[in-house]
Amino acid sequence: MPAAAWYQFGISAYFCRNSRVLHPKVEFSNFNFPANGEFSRVSLCPNSASSSISKGCVSQISSLPDVGDFFWEKVPTPILDLVENPIYLKNLSPKELKQLADEVRSELSFLMSKTKKPLKASLAAVELTIAIHHVFHAPVDKILWDAGEQTYAHKILTGRRFLMHTLRQKNGLSGFTSRSESEFDPFGAGHGCNSISAGLGMAAARDIKGKRDRVVAVLSNWTTMTGQVYEAMNNAGYLDSNMVVILNDSRHTLHPKLEENLKTPINALSSTLSKLQSSKTFRKFREVAKGFTKKIGRGMHEWAAKVDEFVRGMIGPPGSTLFEELGLYYIGPVDGHNIDDLLCVLNEVASLDSMGPVLVHVITKEDQDVENSKKNVILNEYNEGASNSDSLSCSTRPRTYSDCFVDAMIVEAEKDKDIVIVHAGMEMEPPLQQFQDKFPDKFFDVGMAEQHAVTFSAGLSCGGLKPFCVIPSAFLQRAYDQVVHDVDRQRIPVRFVITSAGLVGSDGPVHCGAFDITFMSCLPNMIVMAPSDEDELIHMVATASLIDDRPVCFRYPRGAIASMNASLSGGVPIEIGKGRILKEGNDIALLGYGSMVQNCLKAGSLLSKLGIEVTVADARFCKPLDIKLVRKLCENHAFLITVEEGSIGGFGSHVAQFISLDGQLDGRTKWRPIVLPDNYIEHASPKEQIAAAGLTGHHIAATALSLLGRTREALLLMC
Amino acid sequence: MPAAAWYQFGISAYFCRNSRVLHPKVEFSNFNFPANGEFSRVSLCPNSASSSISKGCVSQISSLPDVGDFFWEKVPTPILDLVENPIYLKNLSPKELKQLADEVRSELSFLMSKTKKPLKASLAAVELTIAIHHVFHAPVDKILWDAGEQTYAHKILTGRRFLMHTLRQKNGLSGFTSRSESEFDPFGAGHGCNSISAGLGMAAARDIKGKRDRVVAVLSNWTTMTGQVYEAMNNAGYLDSNMVVILNDSRHTLHPKLEENLKTPINALSSTLSKLQSSKTFRKFREVAKGFTKKIGRGMHEWAAKVDEFVRGMIGPPGSTLFEELGLYYIGPVDGHNIDDLLCVLNEVASLDSMGPVLVHVITKEDQDVENSKKNVILNEYNEGASNSDSLSCSTRPRTYSDCFVDAMIVEAEKDKDIVIVHAGMEMEPPLQQFQDKFPDKFFDVGMAEQHAVTFSAGLSCGGLKPFCVIPSAFLQRAYDQVVHDVDRQRIPVRFVITSAGLVGSDGPVHCGAFDITFMSCLPNMIVMAPSDEDELIHMVATASLIDDRPVCFRYPRGAIASMNASLSGGVPIEIGKGRILKEGNDIALLGYGSMVQNCLKAGSLLSKLGIEVTVADARFCKPLDIKLVRKLCENHAFLITVEEGSIGGFGSHVAQFISLDGQLDGRTKWRPIVLPDNYIEHASPKEQIAAAGLTGHHIAATALSLLGRTREALLLMC
Repeated sequence: MPAAAWYQFGISAYFCRNSRVLHPKVEFSNFNFPANGEFSRVSLCPNSASSSISKGCVSQISSLPDVGDFFWEKVPTPILDLVENPIYLKNLSPKELKQLADEVRSELSFLMSKTKKPLKASLAAVELTIAIHHVFHAPVDKILWDAGEQTYAHKILTGRRFLMHTLRQKNGLSGFTSRSESEFDPFGAGHGCNSISAGLGMAAARDIKGKRDRVVAVLSNWTTMTGQVYEAMNNAGYLDSNMVVILNDSRHTLHPKLEENLKTPINALSSTLSKLQSSKTFRKFREVAKGFTKKIGRGMHEWAAKVDEFVRGMIGPPGSTLFEELGLYYIGPVDGHNIDDLLCVLNEVASLDSMGPVLVHVITKEDQDVENSKKNVILNEYNEGASNSDSLSCSTRPRTYSDCFVDAMIVEAEKDKDIVIVHAGMEMEPPLQQFQDKFPDKFFDVGMAEQHAVTFSAGLSCGGLKPFCVIPSAFLQRAYDQVVHDVDRQRIPVRFVITSAGLVGSDGPVHCGAFDITFMSCLPNMIVMAPSDEDELIHMVATASLIDDRPVCFRYPRGAIASMNASLSGGVPIEIGKGRILKEGNDIALLGYGSMVQNCLKAGSLLSKLGIEVTVADARFCKPLDIKLVRKLCENHAFLITVEEGSIGGFGSHVAQFISLDGQLDGRTKWRPIVLPDNYIEHASPKEQIAAAGLTGHHIAATALSLLGRTREALLLMC
Repeated sequence: MPAAAWYQFGISAYFCRNSRVLHPKVEFSNFNFPANGEFSRVSLCPNSASSSISKGCVSQISSLPDVGDFFWEKVPTPILDLVENPIYLKNLSPKELKQLADEVRSELSFLMSKTKKPLKASLAAVELTIAIHHVFHAPVDKILWDAGEQTYAHKILTGRRFLMHTLRQKNGLSGFTSRSESEFDPFGAGHGCNSISAGLGMAAARDIKGKRDRVVAVLSNWTTMTGQVYEAMNNAGYLDSNMVVILNDSRHTLHPKLEENLKTPINALSSTLSKLQSSKTFRKFREVAKGFTKKIGRGMHEWAAKVDEFVRGMIGPPGSTLFEELGLYYIGPVDGHNIDDLLCVLNEVASLDSMGPVLVHVITKEDQDVENSKKNVILNEYNEGASNSDSLSCSTRPRTYSDCFVDAMIVEAEKDKDIVIVHAGMEMEPPLQQFQDKFPDKFFDVGMAEQHAVTFSAGLSCGGLKPFCVIPSAFLQRAYDQVVHDVDRQRIPVRFVITSAGLVGSDGPVHCGAFDITFMSCLPNMIVMAPSDEDELIHMVATASLIDDRPVCFRYPRGAIASMNASLSGGVPIEIGKGRILKEGNDIALLGYGSMVQNCLKAGSLLSKLGIEVTVADARFCKPLDIKLVRKLCENHAFLITVEEGSIGGFGSHVAQFISLDGQLDGRTKWRPIVLPDNYIEHASPKEQIAAAGLTGHHIAATALSLLGRTREALLLMC
């Protein structure tokens, strides 16, 4: 079915059965997608005028490659085809909603087979998503998610269906929720723990403004490990604003250890129970009892609360009393694949006013075969950078920096029995599994608890071990205070391994590691280094395990290594603060940091062809800086260009500070910094991102040519 | 009694009654203080040789001013005088321990009356501290605290008694625990939530190394609001390492709202109960039952666990089941002022092996009069900066930046009803209370939950309000990821008010706000500004409330304002990215950021007297930079000096980046950056700290003189 046919039913099918809580000011026209033109900001519809945005998008689709083919083999989806907007779900019967769920599921499976994108978490949440959109009135009601992976059914139902095949591609849909992409995404998710905090803020604002819209925050399992969620629940219990928190629980335990054997069966009893809990009568009864005992006195009130808690705690699954203690009224467990149960509970919850925050515990199941294919997708994602390197074919899994790191760690851990790894983050990069298999007692995966991971590493170090703390750059931001206060200030030797440093391809700005050089190298005791290739990475692992009097960090990018020539005979420790010169020339000096050294070498080759001889140096250390090397480069060259895949304030700034104080900038040398541009770079392939950031060898060469006054050649180079 | 008399009993009084769990390798000599010479690192004992450190410290004391007077009026403390080291507590009877508690309390009260330092939290923890040191064997056993305020009894009992009057003074004791100060402080506390994480790391390291020492982490109430603690407890429950977590609960609730009426009375029942819970028989019984039901099957096991939880949950106070859900065995509540009860419970807990993490809930009471004097101390602390300004007398409470900020906020909030304040941090600066009193519905104090505070502010902003998020610089570090991911990346207008920016006097490096300019100004969407005086602060509040399309932050220092001439007729919004010239001259340009503009003006006056005419400019904005102003300064001056009270990578780096790309550095202008030095500056008075940091007007003037080749005058200026 061609994409345009989706629109044949137009707005005439619009009917809202249950618009009781719609704010009077909301015009129905708002429900047209995209209502406020925000969508065009991401340039999905560059040619469309405001009046015919849908049409514009459709023609845009037709001009994208492969769209015809893409949808050719699809099974029919008659009900889904009617749903241009979640408002269409209102007049569907439970039976039709079930069929819709099947259709969305088949659509998602189809997309998955076509795009090899990670849609499994969304598959598990199909019924939940449909029930939410049937009961609540987005975008007036705010539906927040805490993980991008869960939201693809939501994206399909909120007008983005015909762009789903562009997911995570350049100019395509984001892999996460995004305020700029749709008014149905009231908040951007991606780091996995912001939905309750943001939702509570919206609820508090609504109360102050005297509005009546509802706020729904959907949590995933990952989230229950993250500290912010407890802060938010505590505060939600305190503020007592109305909001619905849904725990979409596909593992069903807060204790990762017990994962395997603690799946509470969902049976008739639990179904009845959740319905009872959420029923208006039960809640009213509870409120009355609360008020009554409050009058009688404190002791009695507490006792009554305890009986209530007990009754529900005894029947409820593990975790239920935890939420109650934090101040959320717990309802559950509810079968997340039973639309009738979901509708019943959510309808009750939606109709309750002035009841404070409610937690609905929904149990969903991720299919086993889906589970398996998930691993493949993680593998795919994390190999994405492979396409960054032209020399590698995509048929075999290319070797990545992560592989090199883990191999080197195994070599070091075999030599030094004090070495341990602490890992934090959403997903573990697959190669780390090897280390865990080999040294199960020396590997701590704490999940999405980065703050704890850092201080825990400091504790391990105080206890005489040598911890390597592995955290992606974007998530290390979450533990910055712990890095400062618990490690650097106390000069405790923790070795930070900053993964996914720099641009991260299809994860876009959400997981981009742009700031770590800046925020780590301002710390007084920290040694900050970055390997320029896989051999250097292996040496830096050896270097870091030797450093035992202060903290150290090194970063490496996601994706494939620069070459395949790594000899794994073991790393040789590098002298601290010692860079190296890779290529000598007289005209200009390129000083690269980390992976950008490779692009400096490429620039060197390009310039060589134009008769310009450059020096290319690998700084290795941002801190302590190799001041002898920098001084030498300044003394022997009229121009010094520093290049890094990081924000302003990092390596280039450290070089500038030194050469300024050293007098090298006083007319002797001209310095130019190349850093990441001062904006967030949207998702695209790694190659496209590096080009968008202006960090390719061509860009560096062009900068050099401009400095030498050869502007025309610089322009030609960029054509 | 002169300090030296404390040592009359020497090491001969040493006797260890209960050394069962001491690691065989530990030599008794380790118990001498300071055992490993670490103490001398903080230069408390600069002249002492290793063999006579105690003596050295005593003579050092005698040379400090006022020491004789200081201890003159003290009441006798015969038992405390025997306790040179916690090992001396071992052979004291419960009765003697009680007397010791009275003596420590009188010592603390005496210190408080003398030094006006905040010792109340420590007063409440006296019995607990004594019981811990009686039962456990520090420093072999690790005693961790999460707040400095609680630890003064601990400091007195661990060999630092005779230095207590130097608390928080230059070269004196730190206000927090400190690894470099004493081997009895296994980890540095100060940001209030690291004790379980660090303790768990030590416990895990101990298990790997096959040691048998015990780990005790003492939490305060503040901590239960902080996310990291939940991450850590979750992980402790998962790893199941032996450790004792003590919740020193002086408020006795996890829900701040219920504070007033939820103090569970501690009666005979609860005392019996805690003893039962902690008794070996009960724990053994529980373990056996656990194992038994585990064999029978999952369902039964769960049921048994629930019954157990229920029994203790029904009798226990609110919060008990929360800890159980997180995987900690809960014991409590225990009366924190009853030494017999404390000894009984702690002895049982200490003797339990392989029981996993245990949480002991101890209820303590802070005296009301102490509570009142606490407020005064907060006031004192926060006015500390007053001494920074020479022009102000200390007799009246000097007006501070915080006062100006709150006054300006009240003016703005009266004009714009959408303005709200979100506050996070350990203590609230007193002037904020005024705003809360005036606009109770527009003020959210979330406690020590900075991550939540930031995302919550983003949610409020999405809901149409104008949030000002007030967080001290050092604590904003804890919410850095939320600033990046939930605010800046989504370009949500949140107004960050960064308090306690720069050096913070007696709080030393623990609460120092050194890095915020660096880590905020690298963010693409953030407007980063800083007021140079109180008038500018008022204008910046007005500016920030106008900015409604992107996030903005401004920082101000702790302490007193520059002058008293502020006219509170309301702020006038400043043009974004527009600096100003305060003084014109030809010889050299000083470009200050924030409070350092004042020091540039002082330098200008000093230089004027030497016949050097300088331009002094107030940058106001680090981002967007006033490039016209910077260009003008470069074009008209041979020298440009940037000055900021922040780390490398901040304002100076942004100026350098611009003038480099603009070609201004290519031989035209000589640029010199003055930033905070690359080390942590220890606690001292604000004036002493600014001098130690090299940021006084004299330092700036000397730098200018050096640049002009007038080195001798520069040296003279610094004499």
